[in-house]
Amino acid sequence: MIGKSIFTNLLKKRPHKTVHDMLDKIYPDDSAGRMMTTEYIGLRKFMTVAESLAHIKRTGIHKETIYTCYVTEQRKLLGIVSTKDLMISDDDLLIENLMKTEIISVHTHTDQEEVAHLFDRYNLLALPVLDALHTLVGIVTLDDALDVMIDETTEDITKMAAVNPSERPYFETSVFRHVRNRIVWLLILMFSATITGSIIAGYESAIAAVPLLVSFIPVLMDTGGNGGSQTSALIIRGLALNEIHFSDLPRVIFKEFRISILVGIPLALANGLRIIIINRNLLLALAVSISLVGVVTVSKMIGSVLPLCIKKIGLDPAVMATPFITTIVDTISMLMFFGIAARIFGL
Amino acid sequence: MIGKSIFTNLLKKRPHKTVHDMLDKIYPDDSAGRMMTTEYIGLRKFMTVAESLAHIKRTGIHKETIYTCYVTEQRKLLGIVSTKDLMISDDDLLIENLMKTEIISVHTHTDQEEVAHLFDRYNLLALPVLDALHTLVGIVTLDDALDVMIDETTEDITKMAAVNPSERPYFETSVFRHVRNRIVWLLILMFSATITGSIIAGYESAIAAVPLLVSFIPVLMDTGGNGGSQTSALIIRGLALNEIHFSDLPRVIFKEFRISILVGIPLALANGLRIIIINRNLLLALAVSISLVGVVTVSKMIGSVLPLCIKKIGLDPAVMATPFITTIVDTISMLMFFGIAARIFGL
Repeated sequence: MIGKSIFTNLLKKRPHKTVHDMLDKIYPDDSAGRMMTTEYIGLRKFMTVAESLAHIKRTGIHKETIYTCYVTEQRKLLGIVSTKDLMISDDDLLIENLMKTEIISVHTHTDQEEVAHLFDRYNLLALPVLDALHTLVGIVTLDDALDVMIDETTEDITKMAAVNPSERPYFETSVFRHVRNRIVWLLILMFSATITGSIIAGYESAIAAVPLLVSFIPVLMDTGGNGGSQTSALIIRGLALNEIHFSDLPRVIFKEFRISILVGIPLALANGLRIIIINRNLLLALAVSISLVGVVTVSKMIGSVLPLCIKKIGLDPAVMATPFITTIVDTISMLMFFGIAARIFGL
Repeated sequence: MIGKSIFTNLLKKRPHKTVHDMLDKIYPDDSAGRMMTTEYIGLRKFMTVAESLAHIKRTGIHKETIYTCYVTEQRKLLGIVSTKDLMISDDDLLIENLMKTEIISVHTHTDQEEVAHLFDRYNLLALPVLDALHTLVGIVTLDDALDVMIDETTEDITKMAAVNPSERPYFETSVFRHVRNRIVWLLILMFSATITGSIIAGYESAIAAVPLLVSFIPVLMDTGGNGGSQTSALIIRGLALNEIHFSDLPRVIFKEFRISILVGIPLALANGLRIIIINRNLLLALAVSISLVGVVTVSKMIGSVLPLCIKKIGLDPAVMATPFITTIVDTISMLMFFGIAARIFGL
């Protein structure tokens, strides 16, 4: 290797950082290639357990982890040996008789979120990274995967609240950066709310005839918004944890439909009763209650379909779903409510 | 030990499960005591490295992890040795000269979220658990801490969307359980929205005089709601990651105040301009724009103060903050908007 001694010296000082700096130039953002370290324990299949332990003793100090060892031949990955198995096995045993050949691995371009999932699913300490030629080029360790998991989740939570995620913690992000991260979504959502506003404005004569209708705008908008975000949050989290997939769409719709009806009817009854007692207006009670069931159902349908479809076309459901759901649900809520009210009151 | 052979046999079959079943009866929910395993590698300070490795070879197969070893004397924890250090050290070295005595540990009653934080902060593979007498009673391993982290985050996301968290994935939760998890918050939020509604109803004469006011209800309610949830989501996540604390309250308020002004003014200008162009109504533009700045500022103040205070009094900010913020912000939005509009229009 060219300049090996310089390289080794550099690694001694800040092994992780330097390798990362180099990898950053080669592999795409948020890929396994970016997360990996090239400092792993490599073994050969014809080595004995004793030879392997001696090898770890000589070279282990420079390695990111010594608890999973990789058996290679001409840089191809043949198998994996856990250091636990090495330590509890007989000294004479050959590595090829000890290694596991069913290997869970990722490619250099695998997205870091997928990498994190594998750690979670298989309880791994490290994961080998292969290139396009199936050559072992590095490993990702659990502590790096953990950092990714936490960052990805923070990103999801941030996006679901209509904020562009920041790379840094709250206090380390400047006021101007916070403003930049928030204002675009607020502008988009503000202007989409004007669409809802113009729908309401279109029912000016209905409002003039039954002014009380206006006071139910918050009930319908909030219930629609909350009903929709309940569903979308569960679906987005399910997608992030790989528990829900696009193929589940019909099941999700059927499930959310039944939930909508069972949630909507008590809401409608409770609110209808309140209107009858307080406002003594049966028609108003009818208009609000029917609208409530409709709004809850529509919002839960949108809250389930939209994240799945957005994910399917390769966009991020956390960032796209929430604002769109709010806008669509708001608009439909008002159309339904004033449409139903106009019909019931004969306006 | 009483019944050691039976116990060991049980452990061989399903070591983790059985110990957990026993611990479940002793330690509180969501505590380190519940997460821990009693199967760790114990060493003595006068052992040599070679003796320690031989000890691991004999007993390691039954242990949950062999990669961190615990040095005890009369069951008190004296130090910690990583197996990496054992493997790369001279055979004759005494454990007392190799062990680290600065130990990060938790107590049996430490909350699992705090345990998870320590793994994240210090990049640990395992964490010793001490009882009230500072006796080592077990260890928590990283893979168990990881499961806790993922579950806690899912809970936070679920609660922030006004859903009672489920112990099980989306599809494994029955329709009735989903209904139960969602309906209470929807009912509470629906009735709190009627408060906002009655505020609007109180301005009936103002609406009759300027009917167009009604069409700006969605703009102000949505912008307030979104502005508040942007802030509360960042604060709640910051609290969960231990990056923000109650003592930061003044800093948070000052930061959010500056952000509010810098976000509010462009929103106000954009919307004011739109009203002047489309509605050709300067007074309306003034009323909506002034209200927007006020609503954004108030919602961001509430979104920052409420989660911190709720956490301070020992309640869960994720579950309590979101619905309260919506309700308070909605109410204040409408009071400000109609109050300001009534004054500007001289109603």
